[in-house]
Amino acid sequence: MSGGLRFGASYTPSRGWFHSWLDLDLDEVRRDMDSLAELGLDHVRVLPMWELLQPNRTLIRAAAVADVVAVVDAAAAAGLDATVDVLQGHLSSFDFLPSWVLSWHRRDIFTDPEVVAAQERLVATLGLELAGRPTFLGLTLGNETNQFAKSRHPDPQPLDPAGAGRWLDRLLRVAARSAPGGRHTHSFDDDVWFVDDSVVTPTHAVTLGDLTTVHSWVFTGVAAHFPPGHPAYGWFARYLLELAAAWGGPGRGTWLQEVGAPVPHLGAGEVERFAARTLRTAAGHGRLWGVTWWCSHDVDRALADFPELEHTLGLLGSDRSVKPLGRVVAEVVAELRAARPVPVPVPQMVLPCEDGTVRRSATAPGSPFFADWVEAAAAGAPPRIVLPDGAVPWVQGVDGSAR
Amino acid sequence: MSGGLRFGASYTPSRGWFHSWLDLDLDEVRRDMDSLAELGLDHVRVLPMWELLQPNRTLIRAAAVADVVAVVDAAAAAGLDATVDVLQGHLSSFDFLPSWVLSWHRRDIFTDPEVVAAQERLVATLGLELAGRPTFLGLTLGNETNQFAKSRHPDPQPLDPAGAGRWLDRLLRVAARSAPGGRHTHSFDDDVWFVDDSVVTPTHAVTLGDLTTVHSWVFTGVAAHFPPGHPAYGWFARYLLELAAAWGGPGRGTWLQEVGAPVPHLGAGEVERFAARTLRTAAGHGRLWGVTWWCSHDVDRALADFPELEHTLGLLGSDRSVKPLGRVVAEVVAELRAARPVPVPVPQMVLPCEDGTVRRSATAPGSPFFADWVEAAAAGAPPRIVLPDGAVPWVQGVDGSAR
Repeated sequence: MSGGLRFGASYTPSRGWFHSWLDLDLDEVRRDMDSLAELGLDHVRVLPMWELLQPNRTLIRAAAVADVVAVVDAAAAAGLDATVDVLQGHLSSFDFLPSWVLSWHRRDIFTDPEVVAAQERLVATLGLELAGRPTFLGLTLGNETNQFAKSRHPDPQPLDPAGAGRWLDRLLRVAARSAPGGRHTHSFDDDVWFVDDSVVTPTHAVTLGDLTTVHSWVFTGVAAHFPPGHPAYGWFARYLLELAAAWGGPGRGTWLQEVGAPVPHLGAGEVERFAARTLRTAAGHGRLWGVTWWCSHDVDRALADFPELEHTLGLLGSDRSVKPLGRVVAEVVAELRAARPVPVPVPQMVLPCEDGTVRRSATAPGSPFFADWVEAAAAGAPPRIVLPDGAVPWVQGVDGSAR
Repeated sequence: MSGGLRFGASYTPSRGWFHSWLDLDLDEVRRDMDSLAELGLDHVRVLPMWELLQPNRTLIRAAAVADVVAVVDAAAAAGLDATVDVLQGHLSSFDFLPSWVLSWHRRDIFTDPEVVAAQERLVATLGLELAGRPTFLGLTLGNETNQFAKSRHPDPQPLDPAGAGRWLDRLLRVAARSAPGGRHTHSFDDDVWFVDDSVVTPTHAVTLGDLTTVHSWVFTGVAAHFPPGHPAYGWFARYLLELAAAWGGPGRGTWLQEVGAPVPHLGAGEVERFAARTLRTAAGHGRLWGVTWWCSHDVDRALADFPELEHTLGLLGSDRSVKPLGRVVAEVVAELRAARPVPVPVPQMVLPCEDGTVRRSATAPGSPFFADWVEAAAAGAPPRIVLPDGAVPWVQGVDGSAR
């Protein structure tokens, strides 16, 4: 693999979506994995469900752990490495928290000592089971776990930045101990980069775990500020990668862990162009470890209540046919494997700073900073983003807390 | 079976509690069923989990339905008939609602047309699958479904009495159509009898479904008002049956669908005496169909976060050993099968009425009415409870709504 860039997909099972964990059919999984491998991908992101792994605080189901391992092995049989998320959590608009933290048993999932101890046991269990496998790449604590602490969540978890840091650090240490050598990460949506009061901060993003993960979705802000076809779409993932690199210290790697092509926001005719542009622009980022497309297979329309966009994000249909999107991704991946873009000299843009603080909202898709960055990128010179002169490795507020 | 009284138990799987639906092991189930049959019981109440049967609004898992049928068949192989609850829902303090009605997808489970249509499909599916089985007794819509509409629920469902009636009626009609000849019921805790603003009313209790179900738990009120050992404990289930009969029209049958012996409230030394007294006093109720003890097997202490009382409610231990409680229940059941108590002439007590309305709270364990009833019962003459003179078949408020 030229340049070592990794390309993969989040594995969304073609039959029954993630509910298929309830009826795991390894023949189906193998066919799904084969269909992905044929696109020239090299890894999958595997997303088990927390409530099935740990339906009671002190019960980790051996069968569910074995199912995760079996899916990782099925991927390996198709020539695919695997990363594994632990605490789902949140998937495609649905929350899946176990009953023992909900309703009459409502407990803080980030700070309750018994809950966190149970999460540690689960991380350790999966880490230990997967550690010996040569195709296992690492654990992610969960899919966008910051979702549960958002103030706009219907039942938000109380959490502050210090608590978020403690929780992430604690579980990532368990991951490192149980599966040494893996690339272990945490994940979050772009609130972390763009929302001033997001309790998970850029500091957490760039200091905890082995790579900074980036989830790039144009519906979070880009679509509200730019018309379809605007360069902001195809450059958005790259922008997030540059922003992550700016917040991170030297040498910190980035992983475009989630990026997808939402038809309702792009327009059906733009999907393939968007995907090609996104992959090519991202690949030009010098610190990139890899790209994991969301997602592998369309969500079957027989399933209800998904946001419309979720039904068409797959590289493959729910019948495993290669979609035009999948074909384009396969072509661009082959091209980038053959010749990774050579880094070119680029201008720098300094993050806007006020009273020693970079306000995250001042870097969001609606900001002048973002518009200026996109304009430069679209002109052929995507700026490297840097911290203001004299700032500490990651900018902190006057009260010392991370912003 | 002398007198035709039915005696059974709610089936709480000995390994993994209801989470064992995730890992159904029919050999284990058969052993559980055999251990119950050896107590001389004739039926079990089977409680599947809604989120496993229907993890997406339009996905009813064939495997989960087959699991329910397999458990009913395993019971039959042990000589046990089976009733089946549909929408769990709520079990032993834990709520288990599917993700498609929670959080970002929060929808009213009693009134949202698409949710109720999905519930109808599930009731129909289970009804049709079970209808042909000679040991199948009937469906219950769910375990204490009124739980979700309580004002003190952490996330209460908006519901009024008229809406409650529509929901129950609609699903019970589906049950009747899909499994004709079954005894189909709905269930609820004693808020329905004792809490003035409970939106599920005695009217719903006694007019909807084929039997009036009674769930009798001394911790809901008796334990707060009477010292351990007081006759109120052993007569409470009978009191509820009499109250249910009073609210019901002539000929309406009652089913003591849940009754259990909570050690923390009874005292360990009182458990067996309480059970014997409860069974004997209940059996003296002329309209009783049967008694279903809660529960079959203790909840393993390896499982966390259960209220303490749940670990010792079983007739059998989690190792399937017969507990002293189970032995006493077996003995009294045998005694009552051999010779059902002959109804004796009893005094009557008229429900207290004010401005044409029986206030439910005036009949609760803390009320003078309850104390008077227990005193008479303990003296050997449990009064029949009747509606106030001239009242309609079930007392209604001045605004015509059920109270």
